[in-house]
Amino acid sequence: MVHPLFEKHQATLDGAVAAIHSRGYWSAYAEMPSPKVYGETAMDDGKRAFDAHLGKRFELDQPGVTGWGGDEASPYGLPLRVSYPQCDPQALIDAGLTAMVGWQKIGAAGRTGVCLEILDRLNKQSFELAHAVMMTTGQGWMMAFQAGAPHAQDRGLEAVAYAWREQSFVPGEARWEKPQGKNPPLVMQKHFEIVGRGVALVIGCGTFPTWNTYPGLFAALATGNPVIVKPHSNAILPAAITVRTIRAVLAENGIDPNLVTLAVIPQRAATQQLAAHPAVKSIDFTGSNVFGQWLIDNCRQAQVYAELAGVNNIVVDSTDAYRAMLKNLAFTLSLYSGQMCTTSQALFVPAGGIDTDEGHKSFDEVCADLAAAVDAFLAKPEVATAVLGAIQSTDTLNRLAAAPALGKVVLASKKIAHPEFPLAEVRTPLLLACDATDEAAYMEERFGPISFIVKVADTAAGIALSERVVSQHGALTVGLYSTRSAVIDAMTEATWRSKVALSINLTGAVFVNQSAAFSDYHGTGGNPAANASYADSAFVANRFRVVQRRYHV
Amino acid sequence: MVHPLFEKHQATLDGAVAAIHSRGYWSAYAEMPSPKVYGETAMDDGKRAFDAHLGKRFELDQPGVTGWGGDEASPYGLPLRVSYPQCDPQALIDAGLTAMVGWQKIGAAGRTGVCLEILDRLNKQSFELAHAVMMTTGQGWMMAFQAGAPHAQDRGLEAVAYAWREQSFVPGEARWEKPQGKNPPLVMQKHFEIVGRGVALVIGCGTFPTWNTYPGLFAALATGNPVIVKPHSNAILPAAITVRTIRAVLAENGIDPNLVTLAVIPQRAATQQLAAHPAVKSIDFTGSNVFGQWLIDNCRQAQVYAELAGVNNIVVDSTDAYRAMLKNLAFTLSLYSGQMCTTSQALFVPAGGIDTDEGHKSFDEVCADLAAAVDAFLAKPEVATAVLGAIQSTDTLNRLAAAPALGKVVLASKKIAHPEFPLAEVRTPLLLACDATDEAAYMEERFGPISFIVKVADTAAGIALSERVVSQHGALTVGLYSTRSAVIDAMTEATWRSKVALSINLTGAVFVNQSAAFSDYHGTGGNPAANASYADSAFVANRFRVVQRRYHV
Repeated sequence: MVHPLFEKHQATLDGAVAAIHSRGYWSAYAEMPSPKVYGETAMDDGKRAFDAHLGKRFELDQPGVTGWGGDEASPYGLPLRVSYPQCDPQALIDAGLTAMVGWQKIGAAGRTGVCLEILDRLNKQSFELAHAVMMTTGQGWMMAFQAGAPHAQDRGLEAVAYAWREQSFVPGEARWEKPQGKNPPLVMQKHFEIVGRGVALVIGCGTFPTWNTYPGLFAALATGNPVIVKPHSNAILPAAITVRTIRAVLAENGIDPNLVTLAVIPQRAATQQLAAHPAVKSIDFTGSNVFGQWLIDNCRQAQVYAELAGVNNIVVDSTDAYRAMLKNLAFTLSLYSGQMCTTSQALFVPAGGIDTDEGHKSFDEVCADLAAAVDAFLAKPEVATAVLGAIQSTDTLNRLAAAPALGKVVLASKKIAHPEFPLAEVRTPLLLACDATDEAAYMEERFGPISFIVKVADTAAGIALSERVVSQHGALTVGLYSTRSAVIDAMTEATWRSKVALSINLTGAVFVNQSAAFSDYHGTGGNPAANASYADSAFVANRFRVVQRRYHV
Repeated sequence: MVHPLFEKHQATLDGAVAAIHSRGYWSAYAEMPSPKVYGETAMDDGKRAFDAHLGKRFELDQPGVTGWGGDEASPYGLPLRVSYPQCDPQALIDAGLTAMVGWQKIGAAGRTGVCLEILDRLNKQSFELAHAVMMTTGQGWMMAFQAGAPHAQDRGLEAVAYAWREQSFVPGEARWEKPQGKNPPLVMQKHFEIVGRGVALVIGCGTFPTWNTYPGLFAALATGNPVIVKPHSNAILPAAITVRTIRAVLAENGIDPNLVTLAVIPQRAATQQLAAHPAVKSIDFTGSNVFGQWLIDNCRQAQVYAELAGVNNIVVDSTDAYRAMLKNLAFTLSLYSGQMCTTSQALFVPAGGIDTDEGHKSFDEVCADLAAAVDAFLAKPEVATAVLGAIQSTDTLNRLAAAPALGKVVLASKKIAHPEFPLAEVRTPLLLACDATDEAAYMEERFGPISFIVKVADTAAGIALSERVVSQHGALTVGLYSTRSAVIDAMTEATWRSKVALSINLTGAVFVNQSAAFSDYHGTGGNPAANASYADSAFVANRFRVVQRRYHV
């Protein structure tokens, strides 16, 4: 008997599985916040649902509550004053392991159906989630809606599709019949049970609390594991809304809701203790190298899927669309004030300048023209605030304030007043020029709106430098602008060695820092920026095990 | 254009991919050493080929040769006096990385075709390999032939099938076309390149130098990685023959043969240095907990797939085929003198005895009857020497000599003279009885012909003990004898928690210590005996990465 929720969402699942195979464009959840798709009242309903959380306790009915806490500081300066249950981690682990039994029992199809129902329900909450993401992360509204809701849901669905594909490949049973020449065959009946590894811990980041959380959350859940979601201390609400919805769907379907819980843990030491707990068998983490490396080094009982820092970069060799290139780069550097793990930090430009459709441009001209393009793009305040959003953390503000000392300022960062949120910290990108030898400046991640135009001897040196930076420091994205096929080939081969995704000659409405679910692999898992990819078979295959039994018939 | 070797072996590949999906009986390589299959002269040819190695240098034409060494001591007392090239590990790494480029370029289908050709060629060498396995490991002839040649080849093919299944799911390219309402769609061309992780190190064991080496070797190779095979110091010849054949097939097909090399390294420190080399990205290991744990703890740059020690066990509750059960157990305990990683070490028998088709049997009767069954099975010397083989290492001989102190001797181990090999150390199984509380005796791996009949309070206690032993000390196999469905259910659920394969009521010609490629998962990867399984998606999916590039069209 097929699980009713599997039947209900079969078309979505089929579409997702086909999409991860063809990797063409596909999406299950509309990215435009359109009333036609989401309903005429969705916008207002979502805002009201968000407002209803403010100033209140966020009830989750979890076990082991020891107190309430977790008040986030909005980058927009809005007082949120939501408090969340703080639970004894051991109680969450015990409850999760208890719930795991029933979750195993409904099988891969049942789990997949329930996960698809959860995603569908989260999609209907997209406006509420978008407000929660915007107000906790500082993202602009449109990005908060798209990346925070439908795109995150797509990434979750992608993980479910991979998990389903791997699990459905394992037969529930088999008849094994070995010929014995003239004698009757040896016959055995075999059963294959898919079992989760144990408690999965998913640690979220402060900038993309759903987009970077859903892949690990749904990969672990779909493969039979209880999940503890530990959000970033400043972006709890989007995770809390998510966990509440998951728990509701589980309970409605006869599954113990303690399968998925929220862990609000203010102290790093307590998070470390939870992460190193013997019952925790997988950890998904997005964040700093320091904590990520600590997890990898110390949580040997668990499989760690980590997305860490990197130095994304672009080699600029030549272009036949100079203005369009500058405009594309200006958008990339401005979007969410460079607070994306995919934002380009270093642009490698030959000392002798570049050939363009507007003639040869010297290194200094490229610097000046890019600065002018950013300025022009952000000229209208309503565009600027919508694109830039607000700075998420004071660490980033401090980093930005100190950054001008790292090179020659090509474009200074400015503070912009937000008409709606007077307390919001809005900043335009800082552009610095430096020499390739100034490695200390550009060769570590400077998270935020800080980018370097790095003078390299020539294009070949730029490609070699890009490869070295990616191999040693990691990157999720690199870009190339070139009209010469030999250069494109050389850069392509460099990325095969350094294992990083390459975008070539982006001059339109696709940007190097954007990655589309079902088509673009986010991270390769092959350089220091990430040891896993969203999403591929490796992201799901080790989250479950197959236990067989056999007997004669 | 399809690679000609892919086309040549397509039917074999299709069969293997279908088999890992259905998990019924399937095999590509005949397990009977029959002249009808292998050719009328195969037996003699194989023996001659083996003899031709003796007393000679085994030439491989590898880079960086610094000397010759590696003379193995045959457990049968036969002087082998083969010496092997010892190469500078850095030279092997450098040469492997150079060869990797062309190996990537022929793509997944090309690599798969070449791997299938290699397996086919190894199959034609089955008799030569069988002699090499027999003489280096001490296995009896039939086991050396089957496990050493066709079964090992099947396991290699299984890994290739999994690798192909995962790689073929990744499209070479995709057209991404995103609708833009009334505007023309955004269109991008995307390419997806499968790249290996880097050098794969495959460390073999002394007892199954091909069966335990081929899965990792072929999984790593098929997914685009150069492979360095580091055999056990006493079982080099089977690996050397394998590596030579691989190198020949590679060279014939225009691939740099240094893609696969043999590392004969006498000092553990030098092996450790190689394993921890930054260029080594995966390590497959079968062997001791001490060295395996060292690899896991110290080789953090690599993905480690480790099969370590365990305490395989059987719960005996009741049976309706007492004689057949005893006979089945007698064979299991005798085969290759218990020198299999799957041999049962502990039998949990209720203190109150068991119900059987021959009436109730007390604990002591079960002990005595099992001892008698082993004695009867090994009564004929030609059967005994064929089944037992020889003891592979002096460590095992010493362990066996000291073991009687660990419990009450139910059946003493005897030395048997081998009619053909007077120097062979042949030993019958030692059976000891002890109490469940004597944990120090039976709760660590006692590799070799040493088994314990452990007195447990009752069946429920036996099942609980089995679960605890597997969870804490690991196991590749557990068994159960019971006529009661409630007991079978309880044991089944225990194995889901401890994640171990279960064989129920084996009373015929299938044995708990045997695992069939394409159908039985060898190890689950979910308990301390192994962190990976032969074979599943997780065994291959993380051995390659996908590097994409995209551009507008």
